[in-house]
Amino acid sequence: MTSVTAGFAEALRAWSEAIGATHVSAEPQALGQAATATFHTTARVLAILRPGTAEEVQESVRIANRYRVPVYPISSGKNWGYGSKSPVRDGVLLDLGRLNRIRECNDELAYVTIEPGVTQRQLYQFLRERGSQLWMDATGASPDCSIIGNTLERGFGHTPMGDHASTACGYEVVLPNGDKITTGFGQFESARTVAVSRAGVGPALDGLFLQSNFGIVTSMTVWLMPAPEHFEAFFFLCDEPNGLGPIVDALRPLKLSNVLRNVMHIGNDYKVVAASGRFPWDKVTPGGVLDAAMMANLRRTHGVAAWSGAGALYGTRAQVRDAKRLVKRALKGRVNELHFVDDRRLALATRFAKPLSVLMRRDLVRLLGVLRPVYDLLKGIPTESTLASTYWRKPAGPPKTGVQDPDRDRCGLLWCSPVVPMTGAALTEVTTLASEVLLKHGFEPQMSVSLATDRMAICVVTITYDRDVAGADEAAMQCFNLLAERLQARGYPLYRRNIAAMNSTDLSPAYAALLRELKAAIDPNAILAPGRYEPAVVADTSAARWRA
Amino acid sequence: MTSVTAGFAEALRAWSEAIGATHVSAEPQALGQAATATFHTTARVLAILRPGTAEEVQESVRIANRYRVPVYPISSGKNWGYGSKSPVRDGVLLDLGRLNRIRECNDELAYVTIEPGVTQRQLYQFLRERGSQLWMDATGASPDCSIIGNTLERGFGHTPMGDHASTACGYEVVLPNGDKITTGFGQFESARTVAVSRAGVGPALDGLFLQSNFGIVTSMTVWLMPAPEHFEAFFFLCDEPNGLGPIVDALRPLKLSNVLRNVMHIGNDYKVVAASGRFPWDKVTPGGVLDAAMMANLRRTHGVAAWSGAGALYGTRAQVRDAKRLVKRALKGRVNELHFVDDRRLALATRFAKPLSVLMRRDLVRLLGVLRPVYDLLKGIPTESTLASTYWRKPAGPPKTGVQDPDRDRCGLLWCSPVVPMTGAALTEVTTLASEVLLKHGFEPQMSVSLATDRMAICVVTITYDRDVAGADEAAMQCFNLLAERLQARGYPLYRRNIAAMNSTDLSPAYAALLRELKAAIDPNAILAPGRYEPAVVADTSAARWRA
Repeated sequence: MTSVTAGFAEALRAWSEAIGATHVSAEPQALGQAATATFHTTARVLAILRPGTAEEVQESVRIANRYRVPVYPISSGKNWGYGSKSPVRDGVLLDLGRLNRIRECNDELAYVTIEPGVTQRQLYQFLRERGSQLWMDATGASPDCSIIGNTLERGFGHTPMGDHASTACGYEVVLPNGDKITTGFGQFESARTVAVSRAGVGPALDGLFLQSNFGIVTSMTVWLMPAPEHFEAFFFLCDEPNGLGPIVDALRPLKLSNVLRNVMHIGNDYKVVAASGRFPWDKVTPGGVLDAAMMANLRRTHGVAAWSGAGALYGTRAQVRDAKRLVKRALKGRVNELHFVDDRRLALATRFAKPLSVLMRRDLVRLLGVLRPVYDLLKGIPTESTLASTYWRKPAGPPKTGVQDPDRDRCGLLWCSPVVPMTGAALTEVTTLASEVLLKHGFEPQMSVSLATDRMAICVVTITYDRDVAGADEAAMQCFNLLAERLQARGYPLYRRNIAAMNSTDLSPAYAALLRELKAAIDPNAILAPGRYEPAVVADTSAARWRA
Repeated sequence: MTSVTAGFAEALRAWSEAIGATHVSAEPQALGQAATATFHTTARVLAILRPGTAEEVQESVRIANRYRVPVYPISSGKNWGYGSKSPVRDGVLLDLGRLNRIRECNDELAYVTIEPGVTQRQLYQFLRERGSQLWMDATGASPDCSIIGNTLERGFGHTPMGDHASTACGYEVVLPNGDKITTGFGQFESARTVAVSRAGVGPALDGLFLQSNFGIVTSMTVWLMPAPEHFEAFFFLCDEPNGLGPIVDALRPLKLSNVLRNVMHIGNDYKVVAASGRFPWDKVTPGGVLDAAMMANLRRTHGVAAWSGAGALYGTRAQVRDAKRLVKRALKGRVNELHFVDDRRLALATRFAKPLSVLMRRDLVRLLGVLRPVYDLLKGIPTESTLASTYWRKPAGPPKTGVQDPDRDRCGLLWCSPVVPMTGAALTEVTTLASEVLLKHGFEPQMSVSLATDRMAICVVTITYDRDVAGADEAAMQCFNLLAERLQARGYPLYRRNIAAMNSTDLSPAYAALLRELKAAIDPNAILAPGRYEPAVVADTSAARWRA
């Protein structure tokens, strides 16, 4: 990378002056850690900058332009399964962790304006301490994950505010040229409507900064929901391996008619087993896989269902009561068990889990271990519990003490997340295909289906492995690529991409050409996150055609 | 416009070859009509092209590039109050009316994919004839308005699907270079997820084509709602001129908690009077205005309320019952009358309007005349009835027979529509200011407040006048400009602009620079709708700064 090495030393000096030498690191170990993800990565991290304000971000970007050194922004860098902190190509990491202010909280209009360093834990505690009656949304990832980072990757959670990109607005963005804009009505300095409207007047630009390398978001307004008068979660178990389709077809009308307002999740047996325990080393031959037959066995012995679903009802007592009736009617005959749980009942179940287990011939203790965090997430409460499952394939399991760090501990994790129309047929096709491909490649097909919006579901397929096993990195990536390719070919593209598979080769030529023209206009020196969600470089004439 | 006249004749020949001579018109009278709006316009229409397919639109645009002749797309061209068919600057009209196919209707996933020529009436009749259980949304404008045209202007209706830009996806767009793309997952030819997701993977581009001159939308997917088990509308009357604030503050929590799902509208006394009748020529001296005192008098004599609101509840009978309870509780003590109406009750009220009027000391006949179309709109049924009010200031009133055409009949109409945070204080400030400014300039302040999204309201201020009165055009535009300026200064920008006021002078310089860079990248020859929602040309250095 001659373009980098050229002015790199001067660039480092300039950055040190701009943001303070203590916030510029080129320490080899730190750089190595930053370049490490939960799968094999190739990009080098040349330095780490930790600006403290949007103005310092602007200055850092101007320096990057001056010396033509690419910078790659991260918020908390906990993008596990998709690339963690690692840039797509060699570059300097722009760590926004120090921008961690909650700039505003408006209880009347139910929103907060936050910076990229603000974590789920931080916002949750902030609202608690304030005694706020507002609920945030949370993802199942670590409480230390950045809210803005997740939103910009189009992440989703579990509450009615779970579709993050559609419940955020007013992005403050540092452009690759060092300018700073705010989207929506932030286009006007005088506007009092920035935090209440995604739209401004004229073309909407906020979408340009989702999954892109067009700008660095230094602040964003996130909408919250008022705590409902009554909350009740429901969990269902379906022992029928082909049960997913009928369930989805029965729930879709409830999504479309607004009875089910939250992002519901349905997990398969592998997902539940992995979430609730350790890999059964005793049952599987070394290098083997927990195959369908063994899983069928596990289901019987541990009373794990083929499909386990979780949803929730939010509203007045009467609204929740009627929604319960509709959920029961929809799932009748399609699930084996349906349990409605509120705070009181959950406490009881936890207390009597052991005896109830015997009674119900289900491992309720294990089940509650899985369900409790889901129950919390349905209320927007972040949870610590999910990270352990990234250690599923690690013989030693998660560290008994200290922080869990899948990057450091060489946990192998790749997520393959196709978007699927919310029909039983489509979701059956996708989950069947994913299960086949993963088992064939020697990985347990952990899958969850999230009813992300009213018409669309996202199936998250987890490829978990041990990076310390020779060849596992290659095998996992091969499996991922094959599955992604097959899904794409059948019409189910991924909603989100990892840094090793970020460049679509199959974009329509005109669409790819437009993306390139936009990038060239916004970032002529290509200094911002090169390669990030960019179209693959392929022969393309569509853009040139008309100029002839 | 030398650039135009140069190759114009050749361009016309090329267009005639491309789309057929019968679909190219340069007939003076047609051009004159097309350049006429409900206020004074200056731009000339040089020709009218009526392509029949997206491919013909592509070819038309390529020809526009070849000869550097600007084209201005319209769907139905019924953008009354904002510019009708008229381009912002001299150019050739690209009339998309012949693209009027309903390409797909999916009852399972509740959407239609339509072309820009598809009108509200057409879609409504299509769903009726199909016996579909899906409801569309409709605006109060004519049934012959284009759905896509309204959506691209960020129009809104009355149902839970009333925020049109947020319930549409998969825009098929002809770019200024003649390329054709589809937004969202339309980026991939193989995708089966185009119609169910606004998002694709990578940056979202759909927003670029709202209120812009970046592309020509030739098709779009519009989401529909399943007909609810039960529907009930409610209408309230508030005689207290200062009653708006408390009402909005009481309804906001119901919006935020999803009890009120639709776009509610609240109109002032002038709005109701104008919607229900003719200007009282007998009471007002020629050239005078129906002032506050006279309106107070009218309120008493005709039993018109200071504020009249309309909302609706959608769901199961139990859900609607509980929502009714919450609406009653919220409005108790804040309104003088609250009526819940379903199909049965409306039929009765209509039948006994006269006797009931005497009983209630309200002109129920007039009231029902106003309410009936609103009731229909709350169910997504387009209405013919609203157009008559554009003739409010015309001594002859609307034509007794034949179509109403405000452009042809020189009805003066300007809409000034600020966005306002959904608080009583902000909406009181805006409506008070608007009322003062309009009365001072000799116009009746017809206003409606729409609770457009959960946190944001749009106040539509109507300036209606008679274009045949000397000086009225100038006075109306002067009034509009002053009000828009005052609103902007106080933090309430307009959500939508008319062609005479389309160029913001007060954009942040960096934002304006970015818009210009995007336009230059997407439309280097500036052949698409020049001036449309573009930043005003002002001295600006921010874009150049960093290149130095």
